[in-house]
Amino acid sequence: MRPDILCEIAGDIATVTLFNPDKLNAVTAAMWQRLKAVMHELDDREDLRCVLIRGEGQAFAAGGDIEEFANLRDSFEQAQTYHGEWVAGALQSVVDCRHPTVALILGPCIGGGLEIAGQCDLRIAGESAKFGAPILKLGFTMAHTELVGLLALAGPAVALEILLEGRILCAREAYEKGLVTRVLPDAEAEAEAYATAHRIAAGAPLVARWHKQLVRRLAPATSPLAESEIRENFAYLDTEDYREGMKAFREKRMPRFSGR
Amino acid sequence: MRPDILCEIAGDIATVTLFNPDKLNAVTAAMWQRLKAVMHELDDREDLRCVLIRGEGQAFAAGGDIEEFANLRDSFEQAQTYHGEWVAGALQSVVDCRHPTVALILGPCIGGGLEIAGQCDLRIAGESAKFGAPILKLGFTMAHTELVGLLALAGPAVALEILLEGRILCAREAYEKGLVTRVLPDAEAEAEAYATAHRIAAGAPLVARWHKQLVRRLAPATSPLAESEIRENFAYLDTEDYREGMKAFREKRMPRFSGR
Amino acid sequence: MRPDILCEIAGDIATVTLFNPDKLNAVTAAMWQRLKAVMHELDDREDLRCVLIRGEGQAFAAGGDIEEFANLRDSFEQAQTYHGEWVAGALQSVVDCRHPTVALILGPCIGGGLEIAGQCDLRIAGESAKFGAPILKLGFTMAHTELVGLLALAGPAVALEILLEGRILCAREAYEKGLVTRVLPDAEAEAEAYATAHRIAAGAPLVARWHKQLVRRLAPATSPLAESEIRENFAYLDTEDYREGMKAFREKRMPRFSGR
Repeated sequence: MRPDILCEIAGDIATVTLFNPDKLNAVTAAMWQRLKAVMHELDDREDLRCVLIRGEGQAFAAGGDIEEFANLRDSFEQAQTYHGEWVAGALQSVVDCRHPTVALILGPCIGGGLEIAGQCDLRIAGESAKFGAPILKLGFTMAHTELVGLLALAGPAVALEILLEGRILCAREAYEKGLVTRVLPDAEAEAEAYATAHRIAAGAPLVARWHKQLVRRLAPATSPLAESEIRENFAYLDTEDYREGMKAFREKRMPRFSGR
Repeated sequence: MRPDILCEIAGDIATVTLFNPDKLNAVTAAMWQRLKAVMHELDDREDLRCVLIRGEGQAFAAGGDIEEFANLRDSFEQAQTYHGEWVAGALQSVVDCRHPTVALILGPCIGGGLEIAGQCDLRIAGESAKFGAPILKLGFTMAHTELVGLLALAGPAVALEILLEGRILCAREAYEKGLVTRVLPDAEAEAEAYATAHRIAAGAPLVARWHKQLVRRLAPATSPLAESEIRENFAYLDTEDYREGMKAFREKRMPRFSGR
Repeated sequence: MRPDILCEIAGDIATVTLFNPDKLNAVTAAMWQRLKAVMHELDDREDLRCVLIRGEGQAFAAGGDIEEFANLRDSFEQAQTYHGEWVAGALQSVVDCRHPTVALILGPCIGGGLEIAGQCDLRIAGESAKFGAPILKLGFTMAHTELVGLLALAGPAVALEILLEGRILCAREAYEKGLVTRVLPDAEAEAEAYATAHRIAAGAPLVARWHKQLVRRLAPATSPLAESEIRENFAYLDTEDYREGMKAFREKRMPRFSGR
C-alpha cells in the first residue's frame, strides 16, 4: 500500500486521510502534492459543507518524510520546490478551501503534521495526541511559509518553545497553549470530530465561507521577506550540522552539533 | 418596562446596565444608540474612575434583538446604519471611554453581548456565564466592525471556532480560551467585579487612561476593507439562507439551508 | 555587596543573575546598563548555546529600583535616558542575543522583572513566582518601549488586566494567561530550567539562532510612535499624582490620587 491521500465523501462531509501507515503517516513529497490536488477538488464542490482531515489509524502525521530529503530537498533550488511549492501549496490549499476544515488528531502530530493541523479551522484531539517540531535535532529550520501558520495559531512564545526546545507536548499542554480546540479521551475523539463537522454543516454554508475568509482578511500582515531573507531561511543546507543531523537520524543516534 | 440602558453612579464608579429583562437583555437598536450616548456622557465626566457594564438580573445579553432585523436591518443600506453606525458606534464608545471598563457577566453573553463584553477592558464572569455567536444558524455573518474586536480579544482560532461551529462555551472554557479575565461562583462574581473596579479606581486615573490608550495604539493594524469587501460582508442579505434562517428562528424550528 | 549582574559560564550554558538581594533584586540603573553589556558579551561568544537568566536567591526581580527615580528619572529628558537607553537597551540586548534565553523565575517577577523575563525565549517558573506591574499605585505609565514586549507576550487583554488592575498574579494564573512556559514546584524549577537549557543546547545552534530571528521577523509591526506620542507616554512626570505616588511609596502608605 503506497503512501497516499485518501478522500471519502459521505453526505456533505468529506474525509481526507493522510495515508502512510508504515511511517505513522509521515507526509511524502507525493502526498504534499496530492493533498493540494485533493483539497482543490473538494474546494470546487458545491455540495460539501465541511472537510475533516485525519491520519490513517492511530496517528495524525509524524512529520514530513525525512528519508526523502537527501534526494528531494538538498539544495536551495530543491527547497524552493519542496517547501515553496509542494508544502506551501498544500498548506495554502487547506487555508483556501472554502469549506470549513476540522482536524481529527490522534497520536503524533509532528512537524509537517502540526503544520497541516494548524491550518485547519478547528482541531479536535484525542488524549494520545502529541505535538511538536523537533527539527533542531535534525539541523534544519522551519520554512518561513510554514512558520507563519504556527505563529498565527500559537503566537511567538509558544512557537519559540516548540522550535528552540524541541520538546513534544501532550494533548492537555497543547490545549492550554492554544494549539488545539478541545481534547477528549481517544475513544471519543472521532465521534466528537464528526459531531463538530455536523454542527458546522448544519449552519448556513455561505456564512461559514464568509467568516473563514473575513477572519483571514483581518489578520495583521507582516512585510514580505526579501530574497536574501528567504535564502537565509534555507542556509542550513550548507551547514555541517545539517549533514550531521540527517546522518544521526539515519543511524538512529544522537547528533553531535558543532555550530558550523 | 421598556428596553433601556440604565446608568447609576456611586462615588467614582458608574454602573451601566443593559436592561431588556423580557428578552435576556437582548440589545435593541434603541439600546445600541443609547449605550453610545451613555458611554459618551460617562467619558466626559472627570470624577469617574471606572465603568462597570452588566446586564439586568441573571443575564449579560443574549444578543442583538433579532426580531427587529426584518424592519431595521434588511438591506445593505439599513445594515450600514444598523451595524456601521449604531452597533459599531456603541462598541467604539466603550473602547474610546477614557475610564477603564469592567464587564460583569452572568448567564448568556451571546452575539452582541459578547461583542460588548469583549470591548471592555476586563471581564469578570460567574460560572453561569455562556459565550458564543451562533449566527450560522440564523444565516448571517458577523459585521467586520464587530469581528475585529473578537479577533483582538481571542485570536483567529477561537474566533473561527465560535463562528464556524456555533457552539456555546461555558465560563471555564471561555476562560481557558482567553475570552474572560477570571471566573467565580455566581454568588461571588458581582462582589469580585466591584472589587476589581475599586482596585482600578484606587490607582492613578490618568495613568489608567494612558495605559488604555497606549495598548490600543500599539495594536498591529490591518489594511482597511475596500468598499467591495464591505459589500460582501453584508451579501448574506440577498441569500435564500438568510430568509430561511430568520424564518426558522421566528417559527422556533431548525433551519434547512441550501447554500444559496 | 553591591547591586550587580553576575555572569557564570558552565560548558555551553551561561547563567546571568540579577543580583540585588537587599531589594529582592530590584534592578538599578547601573544593573540595566550592566545587563546590556553582559548580554552583548555573551552574544559575541561562539561557544555558548543557551543563556539562563535568574535572580539571586528566592526572587527574580521585584521591579526597577524605585528609590532612584527621584534623581535619575524625574524629567522627560532623564526618562529618555533611563527608559529609552538603559532599560530599552537592556531589554533589546536580551531580544537580540543570538543564543536562546531561558528565564528561571522564583518569587517576585514584577515591573522591570516581568519585562526582562518577558523578553526571554522561554520562562520556567516555580510555584512561588508572582507576576505584575502595579505602577498605577505609583502614578506612572509603563514606557512604550517596555509595553511592546508585554503585548507581544500576553496580548492586549492580559496587558490591560495587569496594568489597569495592578493585581499580582500567581504562577498558575500567569501560566493560564500565557505569561510563562511552564510551572513547577519551587524545589524542581531550577532543575527544570537547566534541563530546558540543556535540551536547547543539544540542538543545532545555528538553527536555534535562525528560528529566534525568524519568529521576531515575522511579528506584525505597529507604526512607530510620533514624537508627541512619546512625550505623552512620559506626561505623568508633570502630574501631581506621580508626586503623590512616589511620596506614598516612600512613606509606606496608600496614595491619594486626584487625577491631576
